[in-house]
Order: sequence, then structure tokens, then C-alpha cells
Amino acid sequence: MSFWSDPIEVLGMDGDDTLWRCQDGFDHAESEFRALLSPYADAETADRALNATVRRNLDMYGYGVKSFALSAIETASELVGPALTTQMVGRVLELGRELLTAPVELLPGASAAVGALRAAGHRLVLITKGDLVDQQRKLRESGLGDHFDHVEVVSDKVADTYRDLLAVLECPPERFLMVGNSPLSDVLPVVEIGSRAVYVPYHTTWRHEEAADVGWHRHPAIRTLDNLVELTHSL
Amino acid sequence: MSFWSDPIEVLGMDGDDTLWRCQDGFDHAESEFRALLSPYADAETADRALNATVRRNLDMYGYGVKSFALSAIETASELVGPALTTQMVGRVLELGRELLTAPVELLPGASAAVGALRAAGHRLVLITKGDLVDQQRKLRESGLGDHFDHVEVVSDKVADTYRDLLAVLECPPERFLMVGNSPLSDVLPVVEIGSRAVYVPYHTTWRHEEAADVGWHRHPAIRTLDNLVELTHSL
Repeated sequence: MSFWSDPIEVLGMDGDDTLWRCQDGFDHAESEFRALLSPYADAETADRALNATVRRNLDMYGYGVKSFALSAIETASELVGPALTTQMVGRVLELGRELLTAPVELLPGASAAVGALRAAGHRLVLITKGDLVDQQRKLRESGLGDHFDHVEVVSDKVADTYRDLLAVLECPPERFLMVGNSPLSDVLPVVEIGSRAVYVPYHTTWRHEEAADVGWHRHPAIRTLDNLVELTHSL
Repeated sequence: MSFWSDPIEVLGMDGDDTLWRCQDGFDHAESEFRALLSPYADAETADRALNATVRRNLDMYGYGVKSFALSAIETASELVGPALTTQMVGRVLELGRELLTAPVELLPGASAAVGALRAAGHRLVLITKGDLVDQQRKLRESGLGDHFDHVEVVSDKVADTYRDLLAVLECPPERFLMVGNSPLSDVLPVVEIGSRAVYVPYHTTWRHEEAADVGWHRHPAIRTLDNLVELTHSL
């Protein structure tokens, strides 16, 4: 007897902080940014100003490293004022380049999980938010590229995003399962359209998104990608 | 009798400079950038340096406005050196914001052409290169969004891009037709995979891409989107 009422046809997987590390890199870049601005602003001021700029620019720039770099340059200009130097601008550009060229570090169990899901015969789709070129680079360097039937980089993960994607894939919602580390992006909107979700927590986003919890815990929460492989035996 | 040996199922359309103006905006931003740097570099030097930076960063940044803005800031840092001011950095950021918020100007016949193609019953897919958030904004503001069954923003338009997309759409190559203004992106790779292409020239890209012509002219070249509507009667 299947764990699910309907068999799963399409399996969606998130990339950043589900299959490979991502937030750690941004955390490091933000820490370097605070250090760069330390002669002009204390850590809390720099942090608050950067977050405010990123939020203000979100509709216009979207998610991703290039958006981060542009917002960081804008924040540095604001906080440092006329004392801004070519070296400081260069260092912020460099922080962006470091994020865009850092080696891709797979999370434990990612390769085995993706391989097992692929072997189980589902259509496997990477559904990831952020910058197109950067996400494609990460998938390529992850070595997991061949396992995915399709890659969908989206600007945001809301219910309509998943509805549109399933329409294109001609998959009924009840036959779609999404796996990811973000309750807000990978679980709630998926549940909203009548699909299933599996939640794989990641340490650095957990506390932040917990605040927005409005029911994702009703879904199969697994602790590691290893558990996902066990789960596939019943799909 | 059909103009085509196979009926067309999926119709792909390019956005920038096919449905709406794009290159004009970048031309204007580059001219403003040259003016900004004029105390430090003549127009030719500024132009050459910016183009070199954009090309050098292409693999890392990809196409689009955010990539342009980051490369323009890098170029300004190089050319101006220690004299770089907060105001100059702010002006380059502003040039990017202007591009990202400029009203979308449809090209003549775009609305009628898309409407007619939609009415003819084909699956209509916008296939466009560049920045995800920016392209989605332009499609939304164009008023053409409802006409498209699917939107695919890609990092580059090469043969594999089209192969992958047609696999997802489950459309055989011989039943796919692409419409666009770029021989290199919209015609040649499409022909390479055994599909059809329709070329709609646009004034500012024409001279540049002409140099790379290796046979796109064997395909139905139409001069305006109005001709495309006529063409649809025989699809």
C-alpha cells in the first residue's frame, strides 16, 4: 500500500540549501561587508541598512547574487557618503564574484537522494529561486545535472508559480511532490494548490522562516535527505 | 495547402526587440555612461572598456540589466581610479534602475500579431534571454501576458536550449516555429535542431549580427510583425 493516495509523477526539488549550501555563502559575504564598513558604521547599522536596501529593491532586482551586490554597493554609498573609495566598491564587487564562483558544496545525502529518486522513475525537476546563470552554474558543478529532466528557475515560489509549471508539465497537482528547505517557498504554496511537499530543514534558514509558520508541519517533515531516500520506497 | 510541410503546434516568440523595444534603452544608458566618464576618458575609450568588461563577465553574470550595471560600475572604477565619487556610483546605479523601470514600449504590430497567433490555436511560448525578474515585468506591462501559455527565460539561446524546451513541451522539432529578431539566437540554433524560424529584423541589432550570418536567410524572412499575421493564415 502506498504512503500516498495518488502515485507521484513529477518530483520537484529545491536547490539552494536543499541540495547544496547557499545561505552560508551569503552569511559570509554579509560579514565581510560589515567588516568593510566598520570604520563608518557599527555592525548592527550596516546590517540593518543592507537588509533595508535589499528589501526595497526586491521587486526591481529579484533574488540572487547580482541583486545582493548592487544593493550592497548602494548601501555602502549611503553609509560611507563622500568617503567612499574605489577600493571599497571593488571589494563589494569582489564579494559578489566570490559568491558566483565559489565551489558548489553538496549537502550530505544529496547525491544519493537525487540518484534514488531518479532511479525510481519519476520525472525530476529542479525548481529554484534566484539568478538564472548562477543556478545553472551550480547545477552544472554539482554533478547532478544529468539526473534532472528539467530545470525551472523562477523569480518567486508562490502558488501560481507551481500551478503554471504543472500546467506546462501536464501533471495533475495531486501527482506532484515538492522537496525543499523553505516552508514559505517549498511547502505552503505547494500545499495550497493540492500537491504534496516534503520538508528538509536547513540550519540557517530554519529560525527565520519558523516565524511565518502557518501549517506546513502537517506535511511529511523529514530531517535529512537520507530519510527522503527511504520515503521513495513508498512513492 | 499549407506553407509548411508539418503543422505547427508550438510557436515561440522572442521578447526584446521583437515584441518590445530593448536595445534603444541600453544604447541610451551607454551614452549616459560615456557622458558621466567624459572628464576621465574619451567616448571611444569608455565604450571599449565597458564592452570589454561586459564580455569578460558574461559567463559569470549573464545577460541583462543587473549584469550591465555591475560591469558599468567596474568599468567606472577602472577608468576613474581614485577620483571615483559616490555621485558617480549613484548615477550608474540609477542608469540600471531607469532600465528596470522604463515603460514597456511595444513594437508596431506586436499586439495584433500575438493576438492573431493565439487565436489561431497554437501553444504560444515567450522564449527570451536575460534577467528573469526584468523579463517578467516587461511581459506583465506589455499587456501580452495572457496570450502566452508559457514563459521561458533562458540564459542563452543555443541548440540545446531549444532541444530541452521542446522535450519539456513534448513538441517534436518539426512542429515548432520560432519568431525573433536575432539570427544568432532565434534562427540559427532553431534551424540546427530541425525546427522552423521566422526572422523579424530590428534596426539596432541588424548590423551587428549580420557579420555572423551563416545561412539564416534560407528561412522565411519577414520585415514586420504585420507580415507575420498574414503568414499565420497558412500555418
